[in-house]
Amino acid sequence: MVNEKSFLLGNTGSAIRELFEYGKKRKAIVGEDNVFDYSIGNPSIPSPSIVNETLIKLLKEKEATSLHGYTSAVGDLNVRRAIVEYINKTYSVNEKPELVYMTCGAAASLTITMNAILNKGDEIIALAPFFPEYRVFCEKAGGVLKVVPCRKEDFQIDFDLLAKSITKNTKGIIINSPNNPTGVVFKEDTIKKLASLLEAKEKEFNTDIYIISDEPYRELVYDKETIVPYVTKYYANTIVCYSFSKSISLPGERIGYILVGANCKDAITVYKAIAGAGRSLGFVCAPALFQYMIPSILGHTSDLSIYKKNRDLLYKTLTDYGYQIAFPDGAFYLWVKALEDDANKFAEHAKKFELLLVPSDSFGMGGYVRIAYCQDPLMIERSLPAFKKLILDYKK
Amino acid sequence: MVNEKSFLLGNTGSAIRELFEYGKKRKAIVGEDNVFDYSIGNPSIPSPSIVNETLIKLLKEKEATSLHGYTSAVGDLNVRRAIVEYINKTYSVNEKPELVYMTCGAAASLTITMNAILNKGDEIIALAPFFPEYRVFCEKAGGVLKVVPCRKEDFQIDFDLLAKSITKNTKGIIINSPNNPTGVVFKEDTIKKLASLLEAKEKEFNTDIYIISDEPYRELVYDKETIVPYVTKYYANTIVCYSFSKSISLPGERIGYILVGANCKDAITVYKAIAGAGRSLGFVCAPALFQYMIPSILGHTSDLSIYKKNRDLLYKTLTDYGYQIAFPDGAFYLWVKALEDDANKFAEHAKKFELLLVPSDSFGMGGYVRIAYCQDPLMIERSLPAFKKLILDYKK
Repeated sequence: MVNEKSFLLGNTGSAIRELFEYGKKRKAIVGEDNVFDYSIGNPSIPSPSIVNETLIKLLKEKEATSLHGYTSAVGDLNVRRAIVEYINKTYSVNEKPELVYMTCGAAASLTITMNAILNKGDEIIALAPFFPEYRVFCEKAGGVLKVVPCRKEDFQIDFDLLAKSITKNTKGIIINSPNNPTGVVFKEDTIKKLASLLEAKEKEFNTDIYIISDEPYRELVYDKETIVPYVTKYYANTIVCYSFSKSISLPGERIGYILVGANCKDAITVYKAIAGAGRSLGFVCAPALFQYMIPSILGHTSDLSIYKKNRDLLYKTLTDYGYQIAFPDGAFYLWVKALEDDANKFAEHAKKFELLLVPSDSFGMGGYVRIAYCQDPLMIERSLPAFKKLILDYKK
Repeated sequence: MVNEKSFLLGNTGSAIRELFEYGKKRKAIVGEDNVFDYSIGNPSIPSPSIVNETLIKLLKEKEATSLHGYTSAVGDLNVRRAIVEYINKTYSVNEKPELVYMTCGAAASLTITMNAILNKGDEIIALAPFFPEYRVFCEKAGGVLKVVPCRKEDFQIDFDLLAKSITKNTKGIIINSPNNPTGVVFKEDTIKKLASLLEAKEKEFNTDIYIISDEPYRELVYDKETIVPYVTKYYANTIVCYSFSKSISLPGERIGYILVGANCKDAITVYKAIAGAGRSLGFVCAPALFQYMIPSILGHTSDLSIYKKNRDLLYKTLTDYGYQIAFPDGAFYLWVKALEDDANKFAEHAKKFELLLVPSDSFGMGGYVRIAYCQDPLMIERSLPAFKKLILDYKK
C-alpha cells in the first residue's frame, strides 16, 4: 500500500489538464484552427529578450562552479537585496532582504508557507472561486481549507460572511489579486477593510492571522488606473508568495520567492519556520542560474498589450452577445456565467462548438466557466462565432 | 505559534554549514591559504563545457514560450525517453520512460518518494553513517527512520543486524552507493545478498519493501574495476533517486529524477503516488531549461581525475601518518576515525591546526569525522602538515 492520498492526487488529473489533452486530440481530428482551447493558463507571449540575454551572459561570463553551485538555502543574498530594493522603491515599503526566501515558484512558495505556519487542524480561508491547488497544499500541510464565497455580483470579498467565518482556529487567509480564475483585483479600500477586520479578529481571539498574498499575476493589469496594493503596507502579518512565472513568461523554470512582511509579528520566527519547511519538503535552494538572472529583469514583463487586446475583445464581444462576466482588471482569465445551472454540462455542451471552457466546480463554485485568454489573438477572433452560436443555441 | 517542527529545522543550522561559515570567518583572520576547509560537499570542478554550450544553444534556438513553458508535471517525455535509453544501454536493463519522474534534484527525489510510499508509522531503514537529511525527509513524510549501523571494519552492510531490524512495518531501505559520508561502494555481491534478504522478508511479512537507491554519486568512482551495480537489475521493488548535482557539478540548479523500476510490483500505482506527492509538496515541474539540457549531457561528467588525485593523495598520506580510514571507492568523502572517542571534541581540536572536519554524530554514528575532498588540490597539499601535527599532538 502506497500512501493513498498521494496516489489519489496522482491518479486524479486536474480538470484543466484533461480538457487540454482533449483539445490536442480534437485538433488532430478537426484541424488545429478549428478548436478553441481556452483551458490552460500557460503564458502565450514570449519572455522579453532581456531574459535570454541575461541567462546567456551569465553562462558566458560567470565562473561555472559558482554559477551552478549551491546558493544559500534561503537564496543568494545579492539577489534578495535586489528584489527588496525594487519592491521598496516601487511600492514605497520597507521590506528586508533577510526576510526573503527564494523558491521554486508560486506553488513552492505556498506549500512552504503553509508547512511553516500551520499546526494540525489550523484553518486557512480561501475566497471562492480559488485556484484548486490551495486545497491540496493546505490539507497536505495538515490544515483545513475553509471556503468563503465572494459576492456573486462583482467577485469582491463578502465581508459579512468572512467576519462570521473567522474563528480562533483561523491561521490565515489566502488572497490572490489579480485573481485566478475571475481576473478581479482587490483595490486599496478592500485591502484596508480586510486589514481592519483581521486586526479586530486577532484581538478578539488573541491569535495571529496571516494574509497569504498569492501574487503570480501582480503585474498583469491592463489599465493605468488599476493599482494592485502592496499588502504589507496595510497589514502587518502578511506573507507574500510571488512567482516570475506569469508576468515574464517563465512558468516552467520555477522561480519565485516568499517575503515575510517586515512588520510581521515574530517575523524572524516565521522566516525560520519557512526555511525549515523548505528544508523538510526537499527544496535545497531555488535554481541558481534563474536566481542570478533576477536582478537584471526586475521591472520587466512580457509584452502585456497582447493580453489586454485579448481581454478587451473577448469581454466586449461576449457581453454584447449576452454573456454575464465580472469585469477582469487583471490576470488572463474571464469568469463567465454558465448558461445552465450545471457548469459541467454547460462546458460539455460548449465542446459541440469546439469551445474548451473550464467548468467552475474545481475552483470551489458551481455555475461558471473559466476562459484563459493567454492565447493567440487569431484563435480568439476565430472563436467568436462559436461563442455566438453557443448562446443562440441556449436561447432556442 | 508557527509550526514548531518547521521552526526547529529552520533554526538549527546543519553542523556542516556552521563549520563552513566558521571557515569563512577564520580565513578573514588568518588568511585564505591558511585554513583547510573540508566541510562542504560542493563540487569544486566546473561542469564540462557541453553543459553551458547546450544551455546557450537552447536559449538561442528553442522558441521561448516553449523553452520556458510548463512541461508535463512528470517531466518532458522526450527527456525521459533519452534518460531511459541511456540507462538501458549503459546498465543493460529495461526501464521505461513512463516510470521516470523529473525532479528538482536528489532531495526532492527523496521527499517525493517518501511521501509517495509512506503511511503514518511506516519504517524506513537507513544504514549508518548516512546523509543527515534522510531523517528530516522521512519524519516529515510521517515515517520512522530506523538506523542500522554498518560494520565498522569496512562500512559494508551488517546483514545479521539488518535481518533482525526488518519488521512488518519496514516500508523501505535507503542505500547510497557510493556513500556519503564514507565513500564506500556496495558491489554486486552485496546488492545480490541485500535483494535475497529483502525478498525473503517480503515473503515472511507479506509486505512490499522498497530499496530507495539514492544515487547522486553514481558516476563518482575512481578505479576501472569499481562497478556500481544498477539496483533494478537485482531487485524488483527498487526506486532510484538520481541527481545531476555532483557528477556534472550542477548542485545549485536542482535537476534529477525518480525512476520506478519496471519490475516493481504495482509500478504504475507507485508512479502515480509519486506524481501525487510531488504535486502536494509544490513541485509543479522540474526546471524546464535544465530538463531540455539533459539529452545532450547524458554520459558526460566533470573531469573526475582531480577528485581521484585528491583521494589518492589524502588516503595514502593520512594512512601513512597513522589515521584509520575505510577505503573510499567513490563519492568525494573520506571517513576518518577520530583520535579520541568524542568526534565533536576531536573536530574542535583539529580547528587548532585550521583543519575543518565534520564530526560524525549528525551522520548517525559517533567517533569519526568526514573529510570532503572536492577541494582545490593546492589546499589539500598545504593541509598535509596540519594533519601530521594533529596526529602527533594526540601521540604526545
